Amino acid sequence: MDKAILIIQCPDQKGIVAEVSRFLYSYNGNILEVDQHVDEEMGLFFMRAAWELDSFSLKKEEISSRFEAEVGQRFRMEFKLHFNFPKPRMAIFVSKLSHCLFDILGRHHAGQLEVEIPMVISNHPDLQTIVEAFGIPFFHIPITAATKESAEAEQLRLLREQGVDFVVLARYMQILSGDFIRNFPNRIINIHHSFLPAFVGARPYHAAYERGVKIIGATAHYVTEVLDAGPIIEQEVARVRHHNTVAELVQIGQDVEKVTLSKAIKYHLDRKVLAFKNKTVIFY
Amino acid sequence: MDKAILIIQCPDQKGIVAEVSRFLYSYNGNILEVDQHVDEEMGLFFMRAAWELDSFSLKKEEISSRFEAEVGQRFRMEFKLHFNFPKPRMAIFVSKLSHCLFDILGRHHAGQLEVEIPMVISNHPDLQTIVEAFGIPFFHIPITAATKESAEAEQLRLLREQGVDFVVLARYMQILSGDFIRNFPNRIINIHHSFLPAFVGARPYHAAYERGVKIIGATAHYVTEVLDAGPIIEQEVARVRHHNTVAELVQIGQDVEKVTLSKAIKYHLDRKVLAFKNKTVIFY
Amino acid sequence: MDKAILIIQCPDQKGIVAEVSRFLYSYNGNILEVDQHVDEEMGLFFMRAAWELDSFSLKKEEISSRFEAEVGQRFRMEFKLHFNFPKPRMAIFVSKLSHCLFDILGRHHAGQLEVEIPMVISNHPDLQTIVEAFGIPFFHIPITAATKESAEAEQLRLLREQGVDFVVLARYMQILSGDFIRNFPNRIINIHHSFLPAFVGARPYHAAYERGVKIIGATAHYVTEVLDAGPIIEQEVARVRHHNTVAELVQIGQDVEKVTLSKAIKYHLDRKVLAFKNKTVIFY
Amino acid sequence: MDKAILIIQCPDQKGIVAEVSRFLYSYNGNILEVDQHVDEEMGLFFMRAAWELDSFSLKKEEISSRFEAEVGQRFRMEFKLHFNFPKPRMAIFVSKLSHCLFDILGRHHAGQLEVEIPMVISNHPDLQTIVEAFGIPFFHIPITAATKESAEAEQLRLLREQGVDFVVLARYMQILSGDFIRNFPNRIINIHHSFLPAFVGARPYHAAYERGVKIIGATAHYVTEVLDAGPIIEQEVARVRHHNTVAELVQIGQDVEKVTLSKAIKYHLDRKVLAFKNKTVIFY
Repeated sequence: MDKAILIIQCPDQKGIVAEVSRFLYSYNGNILEVDQHVDEEMGLFFMRAAWELDSFSLKKEEISSRFEAEVGQRFRMEFKLHFNFPKPRMAIFVSKLSHCLFDILGRHHAGQLEVEIPMVISNHPDLQTIVEAFGIPFFHIPITAATKESAEAEQLRLLREQGVDFVVLARYMQILSGDFIRNFPNRIINIHHSFLPAFVGARPYHAAYERGVKIIGATAHYVTEVLDAGPIIEQEVARVRHHNTVAELVQIGQDVEKVTLSKAIKYHLDRKVLAFKNKTVIFY
Repeated sequence: MDKAILIIQCPDQKGIVAEVSRFLYSYNGNILEVDQHVDEEMGLFFMRAAWELDSFSLKKEEISSRFEAEVGQRFRMEFKLHFNFPKPRMAIFVSKLSHCLFDILGRHHAGQLEVEIPMVISNHPDLQTIVEAFGIPFFHIPITAATKESAEAEQLRLLREQGVDFVVLARYMQILSGDFIRNFPNRIINIHHSFLPAFVGARPYHAAYERGVKIIGATAHYVTEVLDAGPIIEQEVARVRHHNTVAELVQIGQDVEKVTLSKAIKYHLDRKVLAFKNKTVIFY
Repeated sequence: MDKAILIIQCPDQKGIVAEVSRFLYSYNGNILEVDQHVDEEMGLFFMRAAWELDSFSLKKEEISSRFEAEVGQRFRMEFKLHFNFPKPRMAIFVSKLSHCLFDILGRHHAGQLEVEIPMVISNHPDLQTIVEAFGIPFFHIPITAATKESAEAEQLRLLREQGVDFVVLARYMQILSGDFIRNFPNRIINIHHSFLPAFVGARPYHAAYERGVKIIGATAHYVTEVLDAGPIIEQEVARVRHHNTVAELVQIGQDVEKVTLSKAIKYHLDRKVLAFKNKTVIFY
Repeated sequence: MDKAILIIQCPDQKGIVAEVSRFLYSYNGNILEVDQHVDEEMGLFFMRAAWELDSFSLKKEEISSRFEAEVGQRFRMEFKLHFNFPKPRMAIFVSKLSHCLFDILGRHHAGQLEVEIPMVISNHPDLQTIVEAFGIPFFHIPITAATKESAEAEQLRLLREQGVDFVVLARYMQILSGDFIRNFPNRIINIHHSFLPAFVGARPYHAAYERGVKIIGATAHYVTEVLDAGPIIEQEVARVRHHNTVAELVQIGQDVEKVTLSKAIKYHLDRKVLAFKNKTVIFY
């Protein structure tokens, strides 16, 4: 079903829901989902509405300007209009650890993710055969300290050439430069292998082991220029015990990582995430 | 804050959200929460809206008839209008096991439950002292097979005298008669100590032990005349192991029971539950 | 590290732990793990001990008879001796749904499962390419009501030819005959897509939807001749809401299924499962 | 049933389990539970054994010295011998928030905790009536910056007078002095209202809200002189969403706190906790 999704943010006022739904109804839109959120501290209103396009009497191209003129201006709204077609294009970056990558490829293969995957990019060649068996192009772009700049340039060239909308770091063990990140604001999803803000940075399972925690976790977040500090999209946890070695924490954690990352991708694809002030509103 | 809550159910049609929100806006209502649900199989639309009464220009008494005239009729709505004042009045029925009762009393004492508790009724005297220390009247109404009818009559008399809105069975080990239940349709909440529909009836922890399940659970549901088969409001689970005895299952399960029942009470109090066709929509 | 694992079952008596550990110590065994369980109702003692073989002064071939003579007879023990080498051989049966299969293949590829996978057998050809990309032989054996007997004969032939130790039904949508099952007592692991004993049989997600449960689950169990009634190895659950369609329950459930099945395989591989009287002791 | 519990720690060597179990068997002890753990990094062996005293042929007073002579010396063991009688004596410190306190009192009243509670000490008088209804003495000891030293002296006097074995801080909003803490090494259990090591210190729910985490937690730990940094006994978590206010996080968190603290108390009472190097081994 072809549908449109509107994500709105504006100062909190009376009548917003009434006007937005009146607008959609006036053009014969069948609302599928509406969700809203008020941040009382900041006095801000957030809203997500999805509706069927089949019966909608505005053309796809007209919707944005008409909405701005009829509703947006009046309430000083910032809004984004999305459609569920054509499918968004997602690039996956990976190093050697395969668990998150395979989980995504498996879901895609089963038809669970409404997304095109024009490429997997890796700084190692190890996973090429299987990625290609899933019918996805694989690009091996090695990175060293010396070649980082040119490697990122090559990555960006591929992303642009293929019209990639967003990037998923599926345990990609390189830190992206600020320049790279600024090309995809709130459009790079990383999985960090700890329950943030605990254990920022390298080797979080070792740190968890040292501290003797009884639960470990994983965090999917948008990448910002501050390491492991971007807006959190999803978190999951798993119970561990004193007898679990670091290697066992890694293995238990990988199950958490892959589920968490895949949930975050799903929210992002369904346009259910609104990132604001380093936090996220997840409409579901 | 004084607020009104509208729970709506009607055939699915276009324009419902628009009209309901327009109605509220036209009388200067500040919408606090809106949630809706479409059951596509049945072609039904469900909605919950909560708004502030302070600025609302309709009197409390007028709202229902004006809404019916302006919106309800047109969409063939069944709706219920609630207010968060005066507080609803809840009776608690209990036998000897105290964990659910104490959990509720503790929350009430801490100000977490917006409810009056005019009475605890028990077929045993054991818990009287502590209930009264919480400032709640305690009524001991013994029940035997012979006295069941008169005991229920006495219970109903107390409930009516005190204007009780709904009843919570906090591990009350008696089966209520159909006559009793029909006095409180979808207004008696029971906690069953299994993950329904598994282990209906008596001694579910024994049955769980016999079957060797790895997870046990509890189910809060509205009481209907079919035992343990009413609409489910909330369920929770806990992990168990082969070495847990039945007595340990009971203890682990009691923690699940009390949390599950208290969540169900909270949903009911916040008017977030819509029971329909032996299922529930939980707006949250 | 080469290690031996002893799984013991006998009438409960004093001195068992002392004698078993004395036996291992007397031949210079370094105990890695010991766990025991007493079923008081049945008066039975269960024990699992794992030790290093490097320094052990008995030959691999001698251990069983020496243990029987020195310890087993005296306590009337039934015991099984396992070694972690050579790796056990596991066959995977699958139909069209790939999520459990891919999860297992991914773990195997990442080195998480100490197992050989000499074959995937499917009644459909769909998953052949990807299975083979993982380096695993794929056999397509179609099944109809008319050919079931010959198909099972062909399956058994392959299993024997390849010395398969146990079979995993990774959402294999055929019911195995009693004859087939008797070839692999407590050595066929199935994943059932419900929280057993709730929703036995076909279409459990539809049944869960109809009942309006708030939590769904999956159950990994050994296959017996009674459908979905064998000893439970592992169970997991996930929360669902009223707005989840059956299709969404299926998708949420698949995440639970694959994690549950992989955990059960791991327990089985690590010789941590003792099936007894239609229940399991899981030593961990 | 009268039972003894031995907690052992020593350099890892062969034969420990054999010798400990031989010792118990030689005096006709019926072992109820045995668990052990090897920390390979540190080369340390930890063990817990529980056995029935009824048939045991050593007198309660002799056990320790005989074990030291026959087993302990040889393996250079540090060990502690406990009995499940007389019941340990636990003091509860609380301020105004009642959820953890009531949870403990409820469990004690239901016979779930094998402990004497000779006192609840509070710096506020609010909870006196209900504590006393549970039959527990209540002591109101106000604390200001100026009176902290004398207040702690009064607390210590009460604890000694009543032979208190360990102290539970059930949301006690005062920081204990190092002097106080040194009186009860690994015998003061605190509940911190965050998922440590995230959000150490004051107002963790506010910090969690600011960071936009999707899961909150609570941590029960032994108190050391470094704030919120002692050995972790138990942790639990709960899911939250963007729309939850800080007040709602507090309420959701309180359910987690009380369950976590009660589990930690249970482990401590059952002598299942071995604190070592700022971590805990939990034998279960």
